[in-house]
This record gives sequence, structure tokens and C-alpha cells, in this order.
Amino acid sequence: MKTQVAIIGAGPSGLLLGQLLHLQGIDTVILERRSPEYVLSRIRAGVLEQGTVNLLREAKANHRMDKEGMIHEGVFLSFNNQLKRIDFTKYADGKTVMVYGQTEVTHDLMDVRAETGAVSIYEAEDVQLHDFYSDKPRVTFVKDGEKVELECDYIAGCDGFHGVSRQSVPEDQIKTYERVYPFGWLGILSRTPPVNEELIYANHPNGFALCSQRNANLSRYYVQVPLDDKVEDWSDDRFWEELKTRIPKESADVLVTGPSIEKSIAPLRSFVAEPMTYGRLFLVGDAAHIVPPTGAKGLNLAASDVSTLYRVLTKVYKEGRTDLVGKYSELALRRIWKAERFSWWMTSMLHRFNDDAFGQRMQLAELDYFTNSDAGLRTIAENYVGLPYEPVE
Amino acid sequence: MKTQVAIIGAGPSGLLLGQLLHLQGIDTVILERRSPEYVLSRIRAGVLEQGTVNLLREAKANHRMDKEGMIHEGVFLSFNNQLKRIDFTKYADGKTVMVYGQTEVTHDLMDVRAETGAVSIYEAEDVQLHDFYSDKPRVTFVKDGEKVELECDYIAGCDGFHGVSRQSVPEDQIKTYERVYPFGWLGILSRTPPVNEELIYANHPNGFALCSQRNANLSRYYVQVPLDDKVEDWSDDRFWEELKTRIPKESADVLVTGPSIEKSIAPLRSFVAEPMTYGRLFLVGDAAHIVPPTGAKGLNLAASDVSTLYRVLTKVYKEGRTDLVGKYSELALRRIWKAERFSWWMTSMLHRFNDDAFGQRMQLAELDYFTNSDAGLRTIAENYVGLPYEPVE
Repeated sequence: MKTQVAIIGAGPSGLLLGQLLHLQGIDTVILERRSPEYVLSRIRAGVLEQGTVNLLREAKANHRMDKEGMIHEGVFLSFNNQLKRIDFTKYADGKTVMVYGQTEVTHDLMDVRAETGAVSIYEAEDVQLHDFYSDKPRVTFVKDGEKVELECDYIAGCDGFHGVSRQSVPEDQIKTYERVYPFGWLGILSRTPPVNEELIYANHPNGFALCSQRNANLSRYYVQVPLDDKVEDWSDDRFWEELKTRIPKESADVLVTGPSIEKSIAPLRSFVAEPMTYGRLFLVGDAAHIVPPTGAKGLNLAASDVSTLYRVLTKVYKEGRTDLVGKYSELALRRIWKAERFSWWMTSMLHRFNDDAFGQRMQLAELDYFTNSDAGLRTIAENYVGLPYEPVE
Repeated sequence: MKTQVAIIGAGPSGLLLGQLLHLQGIDTVILERRSPEYVLSRIRAGVLEQGTVNLLREAKANHRMDKEGMIHEGVFLSFNNQLKRIDFTKYADGKTVMVYGQTEVTHDLMDVRAETGAVSIYEAEDVQLHDFYSDKPRVTFVKDGEKVELECDYIAGCDGFHGVSRQSVPEDQIKTYERVYPFGWLGILSRTPPVNEELIYANHPNGFALCSQRNANLSRYYVQVPLDDKVEDWSDDRFWEELKTRIPKESADVLVTGPSIEKSIAPLRSFVAEPMTYGRLFLVGDAAHIVPPTGAKGLNLAASDVSTLYRVLTKVYKEGRTDLVGKYSELALRRIWKAERFSWWMTSMLHRFNDDAFGQRMQLAELDYFTNSDAGLRTIAENYVGLPYEPVE
């Protein structure tokens, strides 16, 4: 089997990269360890930056998104029982975000890929990456009990934090940076109208809370919990009570509660692997970096990696710019570190860490300063809607 | 002995408050434990915010400052061997800072007080505050072996972190917030021209460095050192070598070195005591709060406390606004917490803390983001020149 770019992983990064390359006439094969149903069953982020929306439009995977997605022109921070709105129209030069679930994005990308006839191999077992430091990389895998070899020019590792791609890199070639936060997010999904038209990120002495949403009748709420808490410790009633405590009274008073249709606890982690190019292997999205979900940067950062890599590979194939292969890492990492910073900062400012009273007052002073200074509001807005992509030249 | 406002401490806060009240026809007595010579021998900060400069002009203690002080229209942050200038003209709406030493400010304030004939009692021993929760507060002290009693309407505690004023408050009435940083600043003074016309705050893997100055031929330099280092560990040669390592090459290449005329190590601390009003006792400046010196906020924060208290007391005496007595604390604290935040943030971003590789990358990402975003630059500039004073109404 042969292709130009072997893509490992059929999550949104791999699918989006495949589609963008396809539109440039570049051939790809996607290998995915799981079934399409499994991939679609993962409930993840739901806030798309302006740049991600633009990239999905460039990929012509925007038809349903532009019908069903909800444009948000602001977001709320809450503390001391008050709501402070970050107005994107005023502070992000008219850029906005779109609420549209990652599952929907993946679904749409699967649909457009199916239409192109490009090859996606699901339930590919024992995927192994070979010779990516040479001119002739290969990927081997087992499909329906038979070993298959895929020859290619380049390999794009879009297979997430636990995937094989990063693990295939020799240990002495990679440097990793990590922070594990001492708490988790307990999240529920409920068929209730969202408490607010926009998202609310709440700082409260009890801990962080987030009021998010998927659509007009599907809400996603989170509360910070100790890492050793179990889902069974949290009845729906206990969850709603705690959520009401942590958000401003004006919001708690109008919160519509209902039975949870999903409930889970997720840990929070910051992680970056450097570099992101290893010969002819590129790491993309979660395979190279993780952000805590505060600020909704995970999927969006994967999208900006995809944008960078797709532009690099297009110039490689169309203009012979093989010098750009090595530059992908540097181009991607500058924006990644800034998004890591924003996610770490939002996490640090909004969560309860320990009994450090000075630290808690610093959080309130940050919130007070940043939500009352025009410059401060602008820093939040421009990061939340997404910093500009680095040009590929 | 009787006065309207008893001021404890003849540092710049006490002297400035005394002078501003004098100009409003309000009588003060200043009690100081030390001699004038001792007070003037303390080498402290040298950067005055625009608001502090304005307040010294309002106090008519600006004659020499306006001749000898140097206006700075920017400040440099340095990291990764590069200098990034924060341009106040562009990012702080034309506000600036003035380089003029605290010792000079104190000297000028002593001179204007001497001219007014207002009473300052130096080397007042065993100062004790009495009955400040009543309508008739008193201060007792021993002067030349004799016990003296000073009756007054109000007491202003301007006697610093170690002074008697805060210590006179019943423990159950006060709440304190504190962070002690795990390093110190080794500072030297040398009769050499400053390495740069403006200040340089440097982040370096070895630790923080600061290039400051008093005038065109008097430089003040600092390097971060472990808390258990002794001044004797640091020869002048070792200091200059380390300083050169921590600043960008373009600066190190033009650094003029010379013998140190002062050398000392200072710890870094964040501290806030709440509230700042106790009956008829007000805490002012370092008596209520300490900031680490990164960002030069200590003296300036004391000045903004003085501005608030002077306006409060003027309205109390001239308009009978005794309701404002209790509000001083709240009015002062909002700006104090913001300055505490800025000082803590600058300290956190610029110093080497430990071997946390992720934390170090967050510092570089903060520096990269804040010095390359217009909004980010504006947040640094507006804090550095000083946030607006809270109105007293």
C-alpha cells in the first residue's frame, strides 16, 4: 500500500488534515485503532475559535456547522457573586467563537471524507511507525488478522496523548514539560436549557464551576472536585446544589435542573513535547500537547497545528519547499506555548488550590484587575477567540 | 500635648501626610523612634509613579525633584537574550515614571516640614497607642527620659512593617495575608553610569537581575540570590560577572563596572493586613502592606494610601464627613490588592523558583505574549506607571 501522507488517528485533527490535503490534491490514508462509532462516542469540547471555524470552512466541512452552530459574542467570568462579561465585539475586534460540539465536527469531517473516497482504515491494530528519519517512512498495522505495510512520504501523528506516534520517538530525541493539577472536573450533560446564553467560568471559595452548553436544550456543567472523588459520590441532586452554590445568585435562581444523561470526572493536565518534527514524522494536536480544559483550547490548538502542517505540506508538494519540513515544529510551538499559558492562567486564576489565603486573594485581584481594565479585558478576549495563526512562509 | 492627627513614623509616608494636612490647615505631630540621620541613611526605592510625583507637587515638595529627577518614558523586560521595551508614551497614555531616590524624597519632605514649623519629635522611645477605639485616642512616648502624652483626634500609623502601630491592634481584629519568596535580592550601588538610560528587568535561567539607577553617575544593580547567601559570598567581581551573564549581551557589552559603595541582601515578601482602619487608627503604607520590590510599587503604594487618607481627613475636618473614616480601609485596599497582584506577577514571571521546567516555560510564554500583544503591553505599562487612584467621595 502506498500514499503520500499517512495519518495516524481519525479524530478531528486527522480527519481535518486529510480533508485539507485532499483539496490540494495530496493523497492520504488514515489509520485508526478504534471503530467510527467509538470515535464518535467521545464527548469533548464544544467551543470553536474563529480560526477553527474558518479552517472548517476552508475544508468545506462547514455545511451543518454554519446551520446549527451558535455564535457567541462574549463569555462571562464570575467571582464574588457577580458576573463580568468579556465582550468580544468590543475587545476582540469583532472575532467570535462558535458553540458546536467536537462530536459534530468529527461527524461532519467523516462525512466529507467518505464523499471524497479517500481511504480510512478503522480498527487497524498494532500500528507501528518505521524509518521516519529516512526518506522512505513506513507504517505497518494489522487489519482483519493480516499484516499490512503502508509506504509514504510523511507521517502525521494525530493519535492523541496516549497514541503510538509520540511513543515511537526515541526517548533521547524528545523533551517533555508537564504539570498535573491537584483536582478534576466532574461534568454532566443534561437535556435542559442552558442557564445563560453564554458560558460562565466561575471562581468560588468552594472551587471552580463552568456553565457550558451544546445547544438550546442540551447543557454541559462542571464543578471542580478532589482527584479521588468518584462519580458515585455525586448524585444529581448533590451536583446541582453544589453548582448553584458556586455561580452567582442571579444565575442560580434561573438554573433549570434535570436528570444527567452523562456524568464523568476528568483530570486536568498541561503537557508539551518538543520538538514536533522528527525526520518525516510530525506530531499534531494532543499527540504533542495537552491543555487543561479551562479556556477551551484543546481542539482549537489541534486545529491550528493542522493548519500549519497542511500549509507546510502543500508548499512542500507544490513548491518543493522541503526546508519547511523542519520548520513545522517551531511554527506550531510558538502559538502552542501561548495557548498553554492562557489555559494554565485561566486554570490558576479560577480553581481552588489549597488553603493559601494570599493565593486566593491574588486570584480575586487578577479577576478584579483584568475584568475592569480595557487592556485586561482585551487580553482575555483575544486569547479566548484565539490568537492569530503564525504565517507559514 | 495636643494635636489633631498624631503621625507615627517620619519616613516618606508620615512626612508626606503631615505636609498635605498642613496645607489644609490640619495640625499634626510626627513621632519617630530614630534620628533624622538614621531615617535618611536607609537606601530604598527610586522609581516614582506619575501619581506619586503629582502628590509631591501637591505637597509643594517638588522643587528639587522637578530639577534633578529623571523622567523615564519606558522600561525594558529582558529574556532569551533580547530586550523588549514597554513604551509608556504609546501604552500608558502619556503617563511616565520619575527616577528620584526615596532618600531624596524624604530629605525634601523633612525640609518643607521644617519650614512650616510643624512638630516632629525624633528619637521618641517606647511609643504606645491608646484608646483608638474611643473618641479620644492618645499616644504616649518617652523623650529624653520623660514620659509624654499626646492627645489627638486620629492616629496615622506610618511606621512601617516592624512598627508599633499594626502591633497595637487586637489580634482578633486583624487578618493578614502573606507570601515569603524563597530567594533574596543582592543589591549594589556603584558610582558608574547606568548600563541603559532606562531600567532593565531580566529573566534568565540563572535567576532575576535588575539594572536600576539613581542618577547619571550612580547605578543600582541587583541579582537574585539564594536566601542563605551572605554578602561576604559576593565579591564585586563575582557580582559583575553574574550580572553580565543575566542581562542581554548587547547590554553586558557596554556595562561599566566599578567598586561597590553599598552591598546588601534583602528578602522578598508580599504582605497585606486587613482592615486598615481600627476606630480612629489608620494604617498607612508598609505598616499595612509589603510588596516585593519587582515593579517598584512599595513607596508608590504608600503614597496612594497617603493620598486617600489625606483626602478622607480633609473632608472629615472641612465637611464633617466622619462617615469616610471607616471607608478609608476599603478605598485604599482595592488599589493595594491590584498593586500586590502586579508585584507578585512580576516577581513570579521574572525569578527562578525551582527546577519546574513547565513553570519556566510558562514564564517565557508570559513574557512572549505580554511583550508582543498591544493589550499585553498596555497592561504592563498602565500598572508600571500606576493605576488611577480611587476617588474619595
